[in-house]
Amino acid sequence: MISRRGLITGGAAAAAGALARRETPPVEPFHGTHQAGVATALQAHAVFLGFDLRRGTRKEAIVRLLQLLTDDAARLTQGRPALADTEPELAATPARLTVTFGFGPGLFEAAGVDSPVAPLPAFRTDRLEQRWSGGDLLVQVCADDALTVAHAVRMIVKDTRSFARVRWTQRGFHSGNRRNLMGQLEGTVNPVDLDRAVWIGQGALRGGTTMVLRRIRMRLETWDAADRVAREFTIGRRLDTGAPLTGTAERDTPDYERKNRLGFPVISEFAHIRRAHVADPGQRILRRPYNYDEGLTADGESDSGLLFASYQADIARQFVPIQRLLAEGDLLNEWITAIGSAVFAIPPGCAPGGWIGETLLT
Amino acid sequence: MISRRGLITGGAAAAAGALARRETPPVEPFHGTHQAGVATALQAHAVFLGFDLRRGTRKEAIVRLLQLLTDDAARLTQGRPALADTEPELAATPARLTVTFGFGPGLFEAAGVDSPVAPLPAFRTDRLEQRWSGGDLLVQVCADDALTVAHAVRMIVKDTRSFARVRWTQRGFHSGNRRNLMGQLEGTVNPVDLDRAVWIGQGALRGGTTMVLRRIRMRLETWDAADRVAREFTIGRRLDTGAPLTGTAERDTPDYERKNRLGFPVISEFAHIRRAHVADPGQRILRRPYNYDEGLTADGESDSGLLFASYQADIARQFVPIQRLLAEGDLLNEWITAIGSAVFAIPPGCAPGGWIGETLLT
Ligand code: HEM
Ligand code: HEM
Repeated sequence: MISRRGLITGGAAAAAGALARRETPPVEPFHGTHQAGVATALQAHAVFLGFDLRRGTRKEAIVRLLQLLTDDAARLTQGRPALADTEPELAATPARLTVTFGFGPGLFEAAGVDSPVAPLPAFRTDRLEQRWSGGDLLVQVCADDALTVAHAVRMIVKDTRSFARVRWTQRGFHSGNRRNLMGQLEGTVNPVDLDRAVWIGQGALRGGTTMVLRRIRMRLETWDAADRVAREFTIGRRLDTGAPLTGTAERDTPDYERKNRLGFPVISEFAHIRRAHVADPGQRILRRPYNYDEGLTADGESDSGLLFASYQADIARQFVPIQRLLAEGDLLNEWITAIGSAVFAIPPGCAPGGWIGETLLT
Repeated sequence: MISRRGLITGGAAAAAGALARRETPPVEPFHGTHQAGVATALQAHAVFLGFDLRRGTRKEAIVRLLQLLTDDAARLTQGRPALADTEPELAATPARLTVTFGFGPGLFEAAGVDSPVAPLPAFRTDRLEQRWSGGDLLVQVCADDALTVAHAVRMIVKDTRSFARVRWTQRGFHSGNRRNLMGQLEGTVNPVDLDRAVWIGQGALRGGTTMVLRRIRMRLETWDAADRVAREFTIGRRLDTGAPLTGTAERDTPDYERKNRLGFPVISEFAHIRRAHVADPGQRILRRPYNYDEGLTADGESDSGLLFASYQADIARQFVPIQRLLAEGDLLNEWITAIGSAVFAIPPGCAPGGWIGETLLT
């Protein structure tokens, strides 16, 4: 027999939670130079909402919408209910909630402002579906508690309703073990100096960045059929430690020159990490990927993969060249396919009393 | 600028996780008198899988399937890969994983054994959909990490494939704040003496129990339109503290006799807690509900509610009378509708070397 309190409140988990809270209050700041949710350590849950503005929504209405949503985000992320919050109790657990806004080309068009972002060029390996692509407005909601995310999403959808309709909803999760559904360790190489690689230094987007969101389906059934040697060869890293095939520890620098006894490179010319590697750390993309898993499709195949979110100062100069090299000859292409794609300008953060987008739309 | 390690590994969260781990190693025992996942403190994530046996699957094959699945569960819950695990690295984070098996009436029929469970009678308020109802075999997978759940589900679906097909997959989450999407505090009243209320004391199911799984949709749009007084009146408890309307703290005993100045009971005759209350604690049901949230339907309505899992020694004597009283006159019915329903016998646990179901099928 177990105790009632233990059974009901999850005694151990609650105690651990309390401990965690004492160590690190689970609140991410909202106001500041940059929006939260980009450089923020990945939370356990994410929902990416793509909205289409309703026909005839012009600058004035867009500004009103953004003021409303900024206010919601400023409150909810700090553990306070939104104005007219219908479930204020659900706001009390911020769980590192971040709410990040992005503007697609269509929003700029509707507002009569030149767009700093344009859709990606087509890639040979893409199989894009409209239902996972495009969108005028992105709201990225991340937190360590799924209920916190669900509540924030509801408040935001509600306040957006008269201005825009939901085009897509993409749900993802991140595990503390940093692995994806293929079993690989992720997040080893990312830019260090975000002021060079990610944050834009001048113009209306100063302090902001750009985002590419790709929905990448994994064919897990055939991936499972590949042996470990093939899998490690595909990425250029080991599955267990994440070490490059030329090293022993995750953070070892890959030696792209090293040859095996037959004279072939140990890390293949077509290995994912070689193809994706950018020598200049200031030109790297910041990857913040979430796993998605929608269970089985009607024909019994797994419907899962990566919500690949990438942030960079310049899409054309940073993201596109990498994606082009990958499309041309990444071994991983055997098992992955991009089925959704969207680009957004991520405005800078704002000060208390300000609103997200003020430098772009006024 | 933030540090690379902090950015990538979620420094703070990882540290908190490490702390939590030192306090309570995140492993739930698998072997024992009872299956885990019933009396276990709720984990953050759950997937309920309902399988239909393939035509012609007889006792011998069912036994083989259960031996296979028991072996998977015994390994995965202890942080060890399943036999022929294709992503062994994903097994290393058990995160309090439990895998619980339940047998529907169809499984007993296929095995040529009398079923100890039968479908529920119809209730006036039900709007059951076949796609969320029934099922020969239940596998309930719960853990604090969504990736752990996803991996266990994949292994189980794979090993089940030649014996059964997935009838439904229901995903739920539980928040540390114990609230549901209506904002209510849940889990206040549950049985204390599980040996009386939940575990079966004799016969082939000795050490086991029975389970009712109801998918209950919430109409959150109209719930939001109700004011707080109406909402609290509906349940008979306060939204903020969860205290009964006749008390001030969550654990205060409701006073069902107390009248207001007009002579009406403070806790309405039709309040959810009065209707659902069972005086004898040994006859209460053990509720272990998970929230579900599938986002918006095509017409913009929220598709969310509760995966209401209830465990009790005797469905007919414990669950049905409560559900009948609720169907007859629970104020909450205005906002909730059962759209799925299934019943399962939950066999006892097993010892190392044994398998789940051995007392029922041999
Ligand atoms: C399902 C799709 C993908 C999977 C499973 C995947 C997996 C991985 C893995 C396991 C690594 C090594 C560990 C790490 O540094 O994170 C990696 C590195 C990397 N990936 Fe991917 N990736 C995917 C798609 C992409 C895409 C679409 C891009 C960019 C267009 C990309 C860009 C990179 C970059 C830049 C690196 C670091 C390379 C370096 O070492 O410098 N990946 N990926
Ligand atoms: C969406 C559907 C439902 C919601 C939102 C809901 C909500 C609640 C809430 C807020 C409480 C008070 C706190 C607690 O003790 O947990 C409660 C109590 C309870 N509910 Fe429900 N409930 C739902 C469905 C059901 C169903 C279908 C049953 C059984 C057939 C049920 C049986 C009970 C019982 C036995 C109690 C404890 C009553 C007591 O105080 O003795 N509930 N429920």
